[in-house]
Amino acid sequence: MEDAGRFWLKNVRLSDGRAVDIEISDGTFGSIGAAPRDAAAVDGRGWLCLPALIEGHVHLDKTFLGSPWYSFAGGKTVPDRIREEKLVRSRLEVSVEQRAALLVEREIAAGAGYLRTHVDIDADWKLANLEAVMAIRERYRDAIDIEIVAFPQSGILSSPGTEQLLDAAMTSGADLIGGLDPASIDGDPVRHLDIVFGLAERHGKPVDIHLHEGGQLGLFTLALIAERTKALGLSRRVTVSHAYCLADASDQEFGRIGVLLAEADISILSSAPEVRMPPVRKLRQAGVTVFLGSDNVRDAWSPFGNGDMLERAAIAARQQVLVEDDELALAFELVSTAAAEATGRSDYGIAPARAADFLLIDAANLAEAVAAHPPERVTYKRGRKVGQGGSPRG
Amino acid sequence: MEDAGRFWLKNVRLSDGRAVDIEISDGTFGSIGAAPRDAAAVDGRGWLCLPALIEGHVHLDKTFLGSPWYSFAGGKTVPDRIREEKLVRSRLEVSVEQRAALLVEREIAAGAGYLRTHVDIDADWKLANLEAVMAIRERYRDAIDIEIVAFPQSGILSSPGTEQLLDAAMTSGADLIGGLDPASIDGDPVRHLDIVFGLAERHGKPVDIHLHEGGQLGLFTLALIAERTKALGLSRRVTVSHAYCLADASDQEFGRIGVLLAEADISILSSAPEVRMPPVRKLRQAGVTVFLGSDNVRDAWSPFGNGDMLERAAIAARQQVLVEDDELALAFELVSTAAAEATGRSDYGIAPARAADFLLIDAANLAEAVAAHPPERVTYKRGRKVGQGGSPRG
Repeated sequence: MEDAGRFWLKNVRLSDGRAVDIEISDGTFGSIGAAPRDAAAVDGRGWLCLPALIEGHVHLDKTFLGSPWYSFAGGKTVPDRIREEKLVRSRLEVSVEQRAALLVEREIAAGAGYLRTHVDIDADWKLANLEAVMAIRERYRDAIDIEIVAFPQSGILSSPGTEQLLDAAMTSGADLIGGLDPASIDGDPVRHLDIVFGLAERHGKPVDIHLHEGGQLGLFTLALIAERTKALGLSRRVTVSHAYCLADASDQEFGRIGVLLAEADISILSSAPEVRMPPVRKLRQAGVTVFLGSDNVRDAWSPFGNGDMLERAAIAARQQVLVEDDELALAFELVSTAAAEATGRSDYGIAPARAADFLLIDAANLAEAVAAHPPERVTYKRGRKVGQGGSPRG
Repeated sequence: MEDAGRFWLKNVRLSDGRAVDIEISDGTFGSIGAAPRDAAAVDGRGWLCLPALIEGHVHLDKTFLGSPWYSFAGGKTVPDRIREEKLVRSRLEVSVEQRAALLVEREIAAGAGYLRTHVDIDADWKLANLEAVMAIRERYRDAIDIEIVAFPQSGILSSPGTEQLLDAAMTSGADLIGGLDPASIDGDPVRHLDIVFGLAERHGKPVDIHLHEGGQLGLFTLALIAERTKALGLSRRVTVSHAYCLADASDQEFGRIGVLLAEADISILSSAPEVRMPPVRKLRQAGVTVFLGSDNVRDAWSPFGNGDMLERAAIAARQQVLVEDDELALAFELVSTAAAEATGRSDYGIAPARAADFLLIDAANLAEAVAAHPPERVTYKRGRKVGQGGSPRG
């Protein structure tokens, strides 16, 4: 029944509280209202129906899922951790495809319909991680949309040959060009960013830059990124991931950088870390789009993470003290509509003619879905059931 | 098979990595090793077998589970929130028993075998919350051990008649005597504590005091608690919940209070809040037992919480940056062995002759059980399967 081209999803609730039936036809939403008698139907059991979650930042090639447990021993600095990771991953006996597949399945089971992954590209890996993750993207194409960032984890200037490899990655099938700490890893923010934005321009692709640099240095780099984004007309096509410097900024500094980010229409991605999470409300007030990602899931960088974007929204809500209903709804936006804006999805959301990508969850409302993030869920992609989390009751 | 008085739990792994079979006989653990051929057996499917989790601090009477969603609107101060809560709860149409039962079932499904709940006692509620929660304790007695703290949520001195009600509560079946912010709520720390410890002495019961007071005031109150604990010989029978002041303390102040807490053998309970969580490692180095609780689960105080003590351990680990294997094992101790010490359980743990209270979880090891806290679990109490979380695979 669910695989039929056309059916009604009956007896679900929307985030605005309405109890409705939803028509699904050829992978898109049709009418929202009451199903006609005798229509082919799937019973939604009164569960909440939400648009598919968006995983804004994950590293499919890094996860150790499916591999023996890795006892965390990362160094204190980013360069230390980069070295440690390369050593550990070079010894793994489980392939990138096997590990990535397990993480993709967890994301789907938890309700994700879209996922942005970074893949490491450097002089040692060359394009191997990209190719493996592209194979995964193909394997799961009917269950989740995956976009791939060519990510220079070892730097560009400090890892000779990486510029050419990034160029080749963009030709081979990467969807976005990445970058990494232009000043503190590569020692030359202007040259690093000129290469990244040069590749974006040449390939006509968006940008997503990892920026761990703190304080004034990070703000300086952010301003350089904003300058290039405006110059190249990349409005709404540039993401800065992490951006701890926004948490460090004084009110005056924040005021200044907020204007630059909003003018350039740069989005900020956060994994909602315990410390130095960019201030979500202040950014949104400044007109900046913020969205969330799991970042590291059981890998050389972190033992935490499980690919559950509702739990991530709850972590963000706790960090930012988002507790009232409209605040929890805001936390949900960070893994749904705001993330859709940041990743350029035009057919997103539960509305006629949009892609029928959604999850059913055993929660009273949006606030409970975030705050308690119950594991009982069913995930649909283009109108087909593709995953299930928890143990659906009743 | 599982309800039989005697069987072998075959093919499980212990937290030390050993793959074993475990004999279970009349609700207690027997031999740990290899099951004899032809023994009655339950297949553990290679899952990790951990001692039952301990929920160290929850409010069964406060939860709104089973009731229409409550839009959080608590005030900024503790007195504001106390007033708001009373108003909201007085209008609820779902009984304490119904709401508490749902939370208890979530705790069990997530692997808890023991639970300490506070119940509000004041001039308005009188003993109604206690009686309802005692009924729940009785209803779930074969699935979880519940201990009840008689908690003066409205203060003792500032809510006339509460002292007598607390006394009656201790006679009626409460297991511990509670207290609340002796200075900032009741305005007289010495009198408040004299009443609390007087009741503890009269009834021969342990103490668990909510202490939100910060900075020097909180440290002053803590010192008064330590003084009374020593004087009455209540070593290991007193818990201070929250104790934000320990997070505020300077190194010098911490050194001083750490000695007092260790000498009095007072335990510290935390819900691992985003800010001002007592420093776990420093407390343990000082010889102080620390354990964790969910605290508020979907109630007038918080929209968060789900009764999953492994997720709580992960929240604590993130807050305290516990990432290496032994550090994640420490986070697990906070919801297991350390909590057992703090709550005085002598038959706790997976060892011959101890109570066969355990959970099976689909995790590679202890570190993953905490870091990823997968929902797939099966809970046993005294050798009987009593709950299940997630959707067991395979």
